[in-house]
Amino acid sequence: MSKYPEILHRRMVARSRLFRVEAVGLRFENGAEVEYERLAGTSHGAVIIVAVDGSGCAQLIREYAAGTGRYELGLPKGRVEKDEPLLDAANRELQEEVGLAGRELEWLRSLSLAPGYLAHRTEVIVARDLYESRLPGDEPEPIEVVPWPLDDLAGLLDEPDFSEARSLAALYLARDHLRDKGVL
Amino acid sequence: MSKYPEILHRRMVARSRLFRVEAVGLRFENGAEVEYERLAGTSHGAVIIVAVDGSGCAQLIREYAAGTGRYELGLPKGRVEKDEPLLDAANRELQEEVGLAGRELEWLRSLSLAPGYLAHRTEVIVARDLYESRLPGDEPEPIEVVPWPLDDLAGLLDEPDFSEARSLAALYLARDHLRDKGVL
Repeated sequence: MSKYPEILHRRMVARSRLFRVEAVGLRFENGAEVEYERLAGTSHGAVIIVAVDGSGCAQLIREYAAGTGRYELGLPKGRVEKDEPLLDAANRELQEEVGLAGRELEWLRSLSLAPGYLAHRTEVIVARDLYESRLPGDEPEPIEVVPWPLDDLAGLLDEPDFSEARSLAALYLARDHLRDKGVL
Repeated sequence: MSKYPEILHRRMVARSRLFRVEAVGLRFENGAEVEYERLAGTSHGAVIIVAVDGSGCAQLIREYAAGTGRYELGLPKGRVEKDEPLLDAANRELQEEVGLAGRELEWLRSLSLAPGYLAHRTEVIVARDLYESRLPGDEPEPIEVVPWPLDDLAGLLDEPDFSEARSLAALYLARDHLRDKGVL
């Protein structure tokens, strides 16, 4: 691995309500100079939750996704609030989006999305020992909840509205982790 | 699933050399109106390549990632050029970033990254029957190539510079696919 490139400059080149685009000038160890653009991350990170019920199903949700402009099937997720512990954020999002909470929550892994141009990271949290509990969310319409057997990820791949790399990676990770623990 | 929301307006709210941020006003079936921001996708899409050699290793690369600001281990990938077939784009990127080409290329799946706010999609391509062939790329420094056994994704997860959800999802998909075909 090379030495980290020297940062020559960083400046904001575009911003909107949600996004901040930064240009970063770099000089690599071999002298090559490049300017990259990247999207700054959300302030306090994000969580994605694999909530597994007693029959080995992960709770998926189907909701309208403005980025792709269609209804997408995927795991519940959301932003972490200021000073909010990761596991609390996961349990809050789960109650807002699915109407369930977990008594047992476990951090599995931190994932990046597109490290070449996004600073964003998402923490994968597994929730178990679920019980009914609902918190009000900010969704414009009720979210459809779709329990899906972790043992049938191949079948999930046949669903035409399932496409998200982050959800798929988190589901594989949780499945392998729970199999290793002997609880799946 | 609900009816698709009505698009009330779409306007560009920020743009840079690389990124275009759109605000989209929507009215949902229940009458709720919301404005979302989303990042428009790259014009012709992107490919991520799982190039598997005769010993069952996928060719990973380690390169500096401007988004996260660190060297990241992941699969080779890149943008599709105008009028370029997907498999050609995959074989071009493979030659630029790894110095190998594949005689057998297969489209596996289309992945979204963060459907809530990104329009981007990435096509997962599996390349096999590899041979040495290099094309000049636009990287600022030579890329380190790291062959990794598809049978040891658990070990890959222990590598501190491996974090990308998209690479992980593509590796799991390719592994399961090649196992199903009986070639792994």
